[in-house]
Amino acid sequence: TIDGERLWQSLMTLAKIGATPKGGCNRQALTELDRQGRDLLTRWCEAEGLTVRFDAIGNLFARRPGRDDTADPVVIGSHIDTQPTGGKFDGCFGVLAALEVIRTLNAQGIETQRPLELVAWTNEEGCRFAPCMMGSGVFVGQLTLDDALSRRDAEGISAGEALAAIGYVGDDAHRPARFAGYLEAHIEQGPILEEEGDTIGVVTGALGIQWFDVTLTGMAAHSGSTPMHLRRNALLGATRVIEAVDAIAMAHQPDGRGTVGACQVLPNSRNVIPGEVTLSVDLRHSDGNVLDAMVAEFRQTLEKIASASDLALAVTQTANNPPQHFHPDCIAAVRRAAQAGGHAYRDIVSGAGHDAVLVAGVAPTAMIFIPCEKGISHNEAEYASPADVAAGADVLLHATLELAQQ
Amino acid sequence: TIDGERLWQSLMTLAKIGATPKGGCNRQALTELDRQGRDLLTRWCEAEGLTVRFDAIGNLFARRPGRDDTADPVVIGSHIDTQPTGGKFDGCFGVLAALEVIRTLNAQGIETQRPLELVAWTNEEGCRFAPCMMGSGVFVGQLTLDDALSRRDAEGISAGEALAAIGYVGDDAHRPARFAGYLEAHIEQGPILEEEGDTIGVVTGALGIQWFDVTLTGMAAHSGSTPMHLRRNALLGATRVIEAVDAIAMAHQPDGRGTVGACQVLPNSRNVIPGEVTLSVDLRHSDGNVLDAMVAEFRQTLEKIASASDLALAVTQTANNPPQHFHPDCIAAVRRAAQAGGHAYRDIVSGAGHDAVLVAGVAPTAMIFIPCEKGISHNEAEYASPADVAAGADVLLHATLELAQQ
Ligand SMILES: NC(=O)NCCC(=O)O
Ligand SMILES: NC(=O)NCCC(=O)O
Repeated sequence: TIDGERLWQSLMTLAKIGATPKGGCNRQALTELDRQGRDLLTRWCEAEGLTVRFDAIGNLFARRPGRDDTADPVVIGSHIDTQPTGGKFDGCFGVLAALEVIRTLNAQGIETQRPLELVAWTNEEGCRFAPCMMGSGVFVGQLTLDDALSRRDAEGISAGEALAAIGYVGDDAHRPARFAGYLEAHIEQGPILEEEGDTIGVVTGALGIQWFDVTLTGMAAHSGSTPMHLRRNALLGATRVIEAVDAIAMAHQPDGRGTVGACQVLPNSRNVIPGEVTLSVDLRHSDGNVLDAMVAEFRQTLEKIASASDLALAVTQTANNPPQHFHPDCIAAVRRAAQAGGHAYRDIVSGAGHDAVLVAGVAPTAMIFIPCEKGISHNEAEYASPADVAAGADVLLHATLELAQQ
Repeated sequence: TIDGERLWQSLMTLAKIGATPKGGCNRQALTELDRQGRDLLTRWCEAEGLTVRFDAIGNLFARRPGRDDTADPVVIGSHIDTQPTGGKFDGCFGVLAALEVIRTLNAQGIETQRPLELVAWTNEEGCRFAPCMMGSGVFVGQLTLDDALSRRDAEGISAGEALAAIGYVGDDAHRPARFAGYLEAHIEQGPILEEEGDTIGVVTGALGIQWFDVTLTGMAAHSGSTPMHLRRNALLGATRVIEAVDAIAMAHQPDGRGTVGACQVLPNSRNVIPGEVTLSVDLRHSDGNVLDAMVAEFRQTLEKIASASDLALAVTQTANNPPQHFHPDCIAAVRRAAQAGGHAYRDIVSGAGHDAVLVAGVAPTAMIFIPCEKGISHNEAEYASPADVAAGADVLLHATLELAQQ
């Protein structure tokens, strides 16, 4: 059984890198702080005797040999990058729970039949560089390495430049070719487990996600001397898009989601009618056909808004992950581990995208959720209790052992 | 008569400082580029034998003695700071037309009874530091020097720190105590003169302006795992504010204006429901009572939106300039000069705030407008023709001579 106190201390230590005044964490992908987080994780892995390598997109793999070291490994982990106003648990819990599994096996001298690999995927959050799940996306071939490295942040820095700047460009020759199984522990990031009093969510799959960047262009002009009827106000068009995204999701309850999270106004000056606005749009649903219908409605509405407001329109899709169902054997292993540990558990569908959702396309995969307070995540107030953190790592340990002994 | 070619060359030379790729100018108040603009203007004034001084908020005064040098001066000028995506003419035309008046008087050896002062007011635009017309606002006592110097830009730098950093802190002892009259030439920044085929606008007054900063606070949360009905989305509340500001202005046509020019979203991440949004609000009207009614309606609507959306609300007023009527004598001098020069002219009310609008509270004041192409201003595409620029400076010369000989 795992050491909950040791795991909690590791979480709190990692959270100091990029700690925010409000108790959260700002350690965005491929920043100097991400480098410091990677340095620390590498030291911890090496202290456990693991062999640490990085691939070309900077994913970290740390290997513990198996009795049959030629067998495909069981892979466990998550990511350590955070949102700009993120919490201490999103991603880090899954990576450090994986480290805790390995520390426990080492402390108790337990060998596994298959090798184990701890993984920390690059840029899961996608806030600095779209798309999210970039590292796992490149791994599974959803996007090419060149495409990923060419993506730029709001300052115009490419992911490739940022990765090189922090010194974590590796080599794909060093990563495992195939996974025997992949398990990822994560906070739920929603309110369901807490509301129903469950400790463990046996994750059966995830909502599909489609992301877009929308730019509306009108005419920047003086806010005082330009009569109302002569304006081409890009921000007024943008308000209609923001409301349409909300309305489309509302019309597809309970599984629909629609969010405009980012909004850039140009020139963003008090006395200038906005000439250009760029919005990010995030649409989700559990059913791929419904999601496609939501996207079609969204695109139609965009055209209508742009022509009614006399604005030019540009739309780019920045992410497209279909809904995913996890592997029955991995789901069953998680369920058995939750039952064996005596934890209250239930099946659950993930509203968030995860590296596991992409890995599921190429390897048997499942996830383990634990509750987070009030369902709050992507927020500095994000919190999971030490007891739930320990329970999640315990389930990860036993599910991993089941998969790794076969 | 003035030298239109010399004036045009000066405009084009000043516009090189902060020139943007799209042919505009980004020389915001109290930046390093503003320092370079001030350096150049100072050299040009000194070359004409003027005595250049700066007051404590950094307003530039350049003096040409009168026959009666103890008489109150006639003051002419405008500002040289620009919007982030501003043009070459807004402000600079008024300052360089004033310089052209002085160059013409010098070249022709004309003395005036009263002294002349060329003025370039600090931070007229108000985009980096609110309020707009900061330098003239301090001059007329609308805001205190300490208040003005304590205003901060989006990076948290105070106006006082920025002024000190560019080395243009002066002394109020050096500025003229009273003006016999103030004349400011400016582009119209609206479409009226062009539409009606007039070259000169005899400006009789200006719309009142009230500015606000509005912050709506909800709860940042994950865009995928947070069900729609549990959200407190600050950006959805903001869209309602943006639409209300537009609707309030539309309900008060033709003289009402309402604009949200700036919008800051936190954390501004694709997959985070916006937790906080700050908007700038700009409301204008020619009638002070109507403007007050618009503001009252705006404040009420804000409260309603915030409580209906379960968002916290904070409102700060950042500028409040009542509508202004210019001085009949100064208006008459401008009208006579336009007539004498044979220019097509009409009376006009300014939709934009100007330093002249504040100076009008303490000294006899009027303004001279020239057309700008399609009414476009606060935009890199801003353009005024060499012929109109020369006509405006010609009217300024003759109106100035009329006031300065009395
Ligand atoms: N788990 C998580 O926050 N992933 C980021 C991708 C998403 O937006 O769902
Ligand atoms: N003329 C001008 O652009 N002034 C800035 C203040 C305003 O917004 O009217």
